[in-house]
Amino acid sequence: MNRSLVVLLTFVLPFVANAQQALTLQDAILKAGTDLAPERLKGLQWIEGSPTYSYVKNDQLMRGTIGKSADLPIIDLATLNVAVSDTVKLKAMPHVTWLAADRFRFRHNGRYHVHTLGGATTTVTALPAEAANEDIHPRTGSIAYTVDHDLYVQRAGAKGPERITKDGADGIVNGQSVHRQEYGITKGTFWSPTGDQLAFYRMDERMVTPYQLEDITTRPSSFEKIRYPMAGDSSHHVTVGVYDLHGGKTIFLRTGAPADQYLTNISWSADGRYVHVVHLDRATENLRLVRYDPNTGQAVATLLTESDTTYLEPQHPAHFLKTRPGQYIWQSQRDGWNHLYRYDADNREVLQLTKGPWSVTDVVGFDPKENFLIVQGTAAVLPGKPSGATELHLYRVEVRSGKVRRLTTETGTHHGRLSSDGSTLIDTWSSVEVPGMVVLRDSRTGAEMKQLLRSKDPLAGHTVGKVELLTVIGAQGDRLNARLIKPSHFTEGHRYPVLIYVYNGPHVQLVTNSYLGGASLWMLEAAERGYLIWTVDGHGSGNRGKAFEQAIHRHLGELEVDDQMQGLAFLKSLPYVDGSRIGVHGWSFGGHMTTALLTRHPGVFKAGVAGGPVMDWSLYEVMYTERYMDTPAENPAGYASTDLTKMADHLEDPLLVITGGKDDVVLPQHALRFLKACVDKGIPVDFFDYPGHGHNVRGKDRVHLMDKVLTYLDHYLRPASE
Amino acid sequence: MNRSLVVLLTFVLPFVANAQQALTLQDAILKAGTDLAPERLKGLQWIEGSPTYSYVKNDQLMRGTIGKSADLPIIDLATLNVAVSDTVKLKAMPHVTWLAADRFRFRHNGRYHVHTLGGATTTVTALPAEAANEDIHPRTGSIAYTVDHDLYVQRAGAKGPERITKDGADGIVNGQSVHRQEYGITKGTFWSPTGDQLAFYRMDERMVTPYQLEDITTRPSSFEKIRYPMAGDSSHHVTVGVYDLHGGKTIFLRTGAPADQYLTNISWSADGRYVHVVHLDRATENLRLVRYDPNTGQAVATLLTESDTTYLEPQHPAHFLKTRPGQYIWQSQRDGWNHLYRYDADNREVLQLTKGPWSVTDVVGFDPKENFLIVQGTAAVLPGKPSGATELHLYRVEVRSGKVRRLTTETGTHHGRLSSDGSTLIDTWSSVEVPGMVVLRDSRTGAEMKQLLRSKDPLAGHTVGKVELLTVIGAQGDRLNARLIKPSHFTEGHRYPVLIYVYNGPHVQLVTNSYLGGASLWMLEAAERGYLIWTVDGHGSGNRGKAFEQAIHRHLGELEVDDQMQGLAFLKSLPYVDGSRIGVHGWSFGGHMTTALLTRHPGVFKAGVAGGPVMDWSLYEVMYTERYMDTPAENPAGYASTDLTKMADHLEDPLLVITGGKDDVVLPQHALRFLKACVDKGIPVDFFDYPGHGHNVRGKDRVHLMDKVLTYLDHYLRPASE
Repeated sequence: MNRSLVVLLTFVLPFVANAQQALTLQDAILKAGTDLAPERLKGLQWIEGSPTYSYVKNDQLMRGTIGKSADLPIIDLATLNVAVSDTVKLKAMPHVTWLAADRFRFRHNGRYHVHTLGGATTTVTALPAEAANEDIHPRTGSIAYTVDHDLYVQRAGAKGPERITKDGADGIVNGQSVHRQEYGITKGTFWSPTGDQLAFYRMDERMVTPYQLEDITTRPSSFEKIRYPMAGDSSHHVTVGVYDLHGGKTIFLRTGAPADQYLTNISWSADGRYVHVVHLDRATENLRLVRYDPNTGQAVATLLTESDTTYLEPQHPAHFLKTRPGQYIWQSQRDGWNHLYRYDADNREVLQLTKGPWSVTDVVGFDPKENFLIVQGTAAVLPGKPSGATELHLYRVEVRSGKVRRLTTETGTHHGRLSSDGSTLIDTWSSVEVPGMVVLRDSRTGAEMKQLLRSKDPLAGHTVGKVELLTVIGAQGDRLNARLIKPSHFTEGHRYPVLIYVYNGPHVQLVTNSYLGGASLWMLEAAERGYLIWTVDGHGSGNRGKAFEQAIHRHLGELEVDDQMQGLAFLKSLPYVDGSRIGVHGWSFGGHMTTALLTRHPGVFKAGVAGGPVMDWSLYEVMYTERYMDTPAENPAGYASTDLTKMADHLEDPLLVITGGKDDVVLPQHALRFLKACVDKGIPVDFFDYPGHGHNVRGKDRVHLMDKVLTYLDHYLRPASE
Repeated sequence: MNRSLVVLLTFVLPFVANAQQALTLQDAILKAGTDLAPERLKGLQWIEGSPTYSYVKNDQLMRGTIGKSADLPIIDLATLNVAVSDTVKLKAMPHVTWLAADRFRFRHNGRYHVHTLGGATTTVTALPAEAANEDIHPRTGSIAYTVDHDLYVQRAGAKGPERITKDGADGIVNGQSVHRQEYGITKGTFWSPTGDQLAFYRMDERMVTPYQLEDITTRPSSFEKIRYPMAGDSSHHVTVGVYDLHGGKTIFLRTGAPADQYLTNISWSADGRYVHVVHLDRATENLRLVRYDPNTGQAVATLLTESDTTYLEPQHPAHFLKTRPGQYIWQSQRDGWNHLYRYDADNREVLQLTKGPWSVTDVVGFDPKENFLIVQGTAAVLPGKPSGATELHLYRVEVRSGKVRRLTTETGTHHGRLSSDGSTLIDTWSSVEVPGMVVLRDSRTGAEMKQLLRSKDPLAGHTVGKVELLTVIGAQGDRLNARLIKPSHFTEGHRYPVLIYVYNGPHVQLVTNSYLGGASLWMLEAAERGYLIWTVDGHGSGNRGKAFEQAIHRHLGELEVDDQMQGLAFLKSLPYVDGSRIGVHGWSFGGHMTTALLTRHPGVFKAGVAGGPVMDWSLYEVMYTERYMDTPAENPAGYASTDLTKMADHLEDPLLVITGGKDDVVLPQHALRFLKACVDKGIPVDFFDYPGHGHNVRGKDRVHLMDKVLTYLDHYLRPASE
């Protein structure tokens, strides 16, 4: 390895303007989202009601128009500050939400304001300082929020809030996300289209065993009680209330038994007459989309049912059409890939809108007449062309016919935003070759109409290596997507140690054809130390279709290990890889994988670092674990064979286990039980605890974490020693 | 280093019977108290009422007599098993307590039995399985014990127990040790001489902040609540009850305010008419020995008072004489050393019985007429002869005149047991040169009457190094006792790394002129790796007199660090020491010292391992901390300058911090706060947690611990690399 040669070249070659600088670990972590991220248009969005867009540039809100090359300022910070009647001034242009072509809303200092261009700014609502989980109705501006475990509504312009629930207490939670964010649930309140009614979750978790998380910053430590339902144990009971803003009353939907079913994917019909809830049984094998009358709480109809003896995991609510009353769009993996179906509420007609060996990942939007919708989805995953899953494209889908047209051609990862008139798309995309592009496209043809931004490579001034995407043959003979990062000083003549970064769990895809191939910047810093950095997405990982994802059912972490070992075999076949110096690092599911690799294949890896690891699935939570593993009673062999605490005595290689001291996702008990198993068996193992941190180490302390991870691996893999 | 030479010599020299074997770390830890300990006479004791003694040899209880060379069997296991009516048989000869020359008591399978030689064995009492804190009255055989937080008495022969207290609950503890075992308190019940009354402690700790200790072995973890009063915070309230076995009633002594005073050193007058309690104020500057009427609870008299503006720490109750009613023996450090005083209860006469620059450490016993008593104490600590404190000798003290005669002449550590007729002492002693001796001595002259045992060197078959005692000049110019262990392969021509094992806290003395100089066997194993193992007892450590011990007042860990640095300077002056490779390890106070050395003297040490460390005295408990540091409010500067969490950013050298996951003495919060301070400041630090372990790692897991400690130090100090 000859770093000086690289530096020398930068002076000799005429097109290099500045001397290259080394990427520090600190910069790689703390500046990954700012100075070292590809440039973007801040706050870029369509302006309501017109095919013009806005974004923030310096302290100005800018407006762009399709046919015009020059963008014009809408308002600057100083002007907005004059308009806002608040003693605390805005320090930067806020994020705005367009209510009309000349009116936007923004939040500042605990208040919501509406500004009319060229006119006044009105303060519409103020919230208490403790308010959390804010959910604003886009048109009326009414805000649902929680304080502690109770739900409130603050109407725009009203003096004070309405308190919706009063039973919030230890074990009773209202208006917040339930079911531990699984099955597409990210929030606890759901406004009706008109804003007249508010559906909300209520969770009774008094029957769930508590766990204590230590806060060492108080003297003495204080202990925070959380409710954590472990696989097979008593789970919480969720119900759905509907608050009527006219009557001021709440009724609860009669969702019935069993009390520990999952109630997910809440959505309203377009006219607000019905609210819909997906009932998923605790076995996650049967679901029902049920229509409720929000005024009586009575179930009106079961709109559809699905079953899967492996598991179901509905992530998207039914989308009810405005222009075709009674019809809705439903997403399902039932044919093997996530696709769209147009349903009639009376079940008279079902049309599969999308099909084929690719996955719809998101609905971008509809045109006003609902003639078509735009979706994001992978490219086709075809035998011999497996890289389709690493790409995301924009597709136009005709609602009537199901005719599908791919609008994007450039290899990469495209994300779309549709103008409210449906004519135009903002396409923000990148690839391994292209740091970032923002273009406008015709939503009918995909034709590029205007280029808004071409991001420069933010690492152009740094000495960094190269990211390559490739495929390897997995344990079941199909191709797996992989990513290899080589250092800038890479030469075929050397043999490099490898750092495998692993996750390989459900829903996650680490290898994507996007900027850096989806890699984190710290991996480029690590590569410069003299590593190859390797990642492969094995069976179970996301966006590869149902069979690929469900292959791991009832034995999480076994086939995945086989896939990773296939990746390792490939690495060892490379002439520039030193197969005797392979390290592994991963977090969460990746922490399980790291430990599983070292215990299932002792003597193969030089060292591992397992962060926030699941060590025993019976200690992980109900929603996730029972879906993939069934319950401990149903699958004792599967739980036993994946319980890494039972395999501690197979550990031969250095392993550093790390936990966040207040990890409420993968409890510290996992790491501590593995430690105890090692101590019981007399097996050396290393450990670190990041006090106060949760399921990962974020913020500036992440530098300390990654320094610890890499220092540990450096010690055993000695990347710079050759 | 040339190990093969050593091995060779063992074959060549004719007096070496067997090949030398290496001492393994596992044996050094697990066999330190058994196979690798000097032979001893198991259960050796005087037989009540006669100057003959008994001990266990194989499965026989043996009797020895002074004038006879051959010892004779008393009873064997098989015979005893026939005599005991229990379905569960004894597997080994139990520990016996002689009640008369022909009668002993022993415990087996939850029952107490009395066996009369040549006669029957009677089961006298059975206790419930949950019984704890058993305290048997020697003559009546009544047993006080606790179940949960309540106190019971089981009289010998009675059908069932009497329940003494009923208010035991979370926060109310009866019949157990209080004040966290400080001030000489080791138990919670105190029988009157006749066994008619039982004094006991009651502790109300409801006002003390709770701490939770995680038990990871349950699923999910369960959390055990303890009450832990931190320096300056609300402390528990202790009272003393007296249960009368005749009346069946309990009265509480009227010990008065303040409620958080210390009530220590409970003792009865010889006639049982009075019970005495030492009242020590929370500031630990004033004490009163108060006489109470156990039938009314009224204070009858204050027998004596003492004051010390630094601190008092009474460790020994007043001993009331049988033959001189109203007189008692009192121990005090008031003249600078711990000595004995004979007091008259009416305060009319005080005679200082012992004096001079040495410490009485224990009272061995009195002759029946109380003409003299036998004490253990150090040798004189004289300028230029500081090793006196490393020795323990037996002294005869005349009660009337205070005339003192030292009975033991051999350099070393002597422990005595006086026969009930007062004529003879069993002296069990060892020294750096002598692994173990047991002899009988005339209690008048100290003349050796019979040799019972001369222990062979248990390490004779192992290749181990040499323990040397020496002195170094401390930070205040006086001499400190030190111990140096050299490996068996030591040669002056090499330069060795040094492992400093440190404690240096109050009451503890690591360097003694006893077997191995007080060293642990693992140190000999570590030395063979190529280390010198070094320990020095600096200011604050025990048995060196009040001024030496109190020098650390209000700034724990500062002068002690200076003393340790003096030791280091001495080491560096030695031609065979590699001053660039010095490691430190210590536990508890020694964990504080290790961290203090590394943070106060960055760049000096190559690595450290701090186990169960106090990191911030404000997080340590009231009884210990306020005595040595005053309260945080009284001594803010002292607490601040000794708070190692504030010094984390001075850390430059590798430090491994270890905690027991359930350490209820030095809470895990200490270690975790130091970790957080390091993470906050971006300072690398290492950590390990022994789940389920308390304030040290004991049992077989200690091998894992010491392997971790030594592996860590080996890595940085590389003892074998030269």
